[in-house]
Amino acid sequence: MPASSPLLQQLIDALKVLPGVGPKTAQRMAFQLLERNREAGKKLGNALLNAMEHIGQCRCCRTFTEAELCAICSDDVRSQSPLLCVVGSSADLQAIEQTGQFDGRYFVLMGQLSPLDGIGPAELGLNVLEQQLAQGGIAELILATNPTVEGDATAYYIAELCHRHQVTVSRLAQGVPVGGELEYLDGSTLSHAFSGRKSF
Amino acid sequence: MPASSPLLQQLIDALKVLPGVGPKTAQRMAFQLLERNREAGKKLGNALLNAMEHIGQCRCCRTFTEAELCAICSDDVRSQSPLLCVVGSSADLQAIEQTGQFDGRYFVLMGQLSPLDGIGPAELGLNVLEQQLAQGGIAELILATNPTVEGDATAYYIAELCHRHQVTVSRLAQGVPVGGELEYLDGSTLSHAFSGRKSF
Repeated sequence: MPASSPLLQQLIDALKVLPGVGPKTAQRMAFQLLERNREAGKKLGNALLNAMEHIGQCRCCRTFTEAELCAICSDDVRSQSPLLCVVGSSADLQAIEQTGQFDGRYFVLMGQLSPLDGIGPAELGLNVLEQQLAQGGIAELILATNPTVEGDATAYYIAELCHRHQVTVSRLAQGVPVGGELEYLDGSTLSHAFSGRKSF
Repeated sequence: MPASSPLLQQLIDALKVLPGVGPKTAQRMAFQLLERNREAGKKLGNALLNAMEHIGQCRCCRTFTEAELCAICSDDVRSQSPLLCVVGSSADLQAIEQTGQFDGRYFVLMGQLSPLDGIGPAELGLNVLEQQLAQGGIAELILATNPTVEGDATAYYIAELCHRHQVTVSRLAQGVPVGGELEYLDGSTLSHAFSGRKSF
């Protein structure tokens, strides 16, 4: 059953592209904006058009930015850091930045190796990463890919590149998450936690 | 912690106006559109701008439409129906249309009486409704306002208008919802169901 107005129906259909938004939620969003907040709706429309049109990737680290270089790569101190952290996506970069723990630079793969989906080293910009490794200035490369099969494959591939260029490579610790309960942890996380135990 | 790019941060902030969308969900939506579906993101942006700019209210029933008269009010058969259903919002109209049970016309209040919030009869277009009652052609007015305190107050007010113009007025049945479990129903719904019981 379509909505009474074609424009309203177009809006409801368009809202369904958002992750986690089905027909009912899309309808509720459309009505809420129309009834209470048309200005915010217009602002969202303009923000979407601007972002989709103008946001590209940083020339150096490949994260999303509308400039040629992102804020981190154009920072005089951070862009000279000897630490390079390789992450799978801009969202992962964002999550690490939010911890405030890391003050080096990043390289964003925008995906992970997945030959069956046609995602090889070139799609992840690994040639660009190799150039950066060859140029020197990187003392340690920290692998922060997802702890999944594809993430691990990607990590091994990048570790190979590092060995070729004599760059130290490390990986995020695997173990029990803070606040987790041992009882509910999967066996593979638990065995990683055992083999990686530290003196206390 | 702001996102690395101002445009991205604007998009994330703008997405938070959607109902049920917090900072984390907004970030996920923004990254998903940027990474996978920029065309759909642009389409959503345009749909929002078009809808916010061009959707107004039907001159006759006050529902959302970009035309002067909505699809129902410009339908030769339905607009002449002797049944008029009064609903609180366009979403309620939509829900009733989806049942396919009602083939009369509607009047959409776009709210309910709430004097403390400055919403009186004029804000709900009740003067327009009274004109329609005075013009004749309505045999029965069906009250489909929400079964809440404000909805009930609105219903009583409209019933008064109907009595003044000798129009029959009815109200949606109150009782147990289909698929509900008696054990978990509130007492007031149960007592409505008892007092409105039907021979079987």
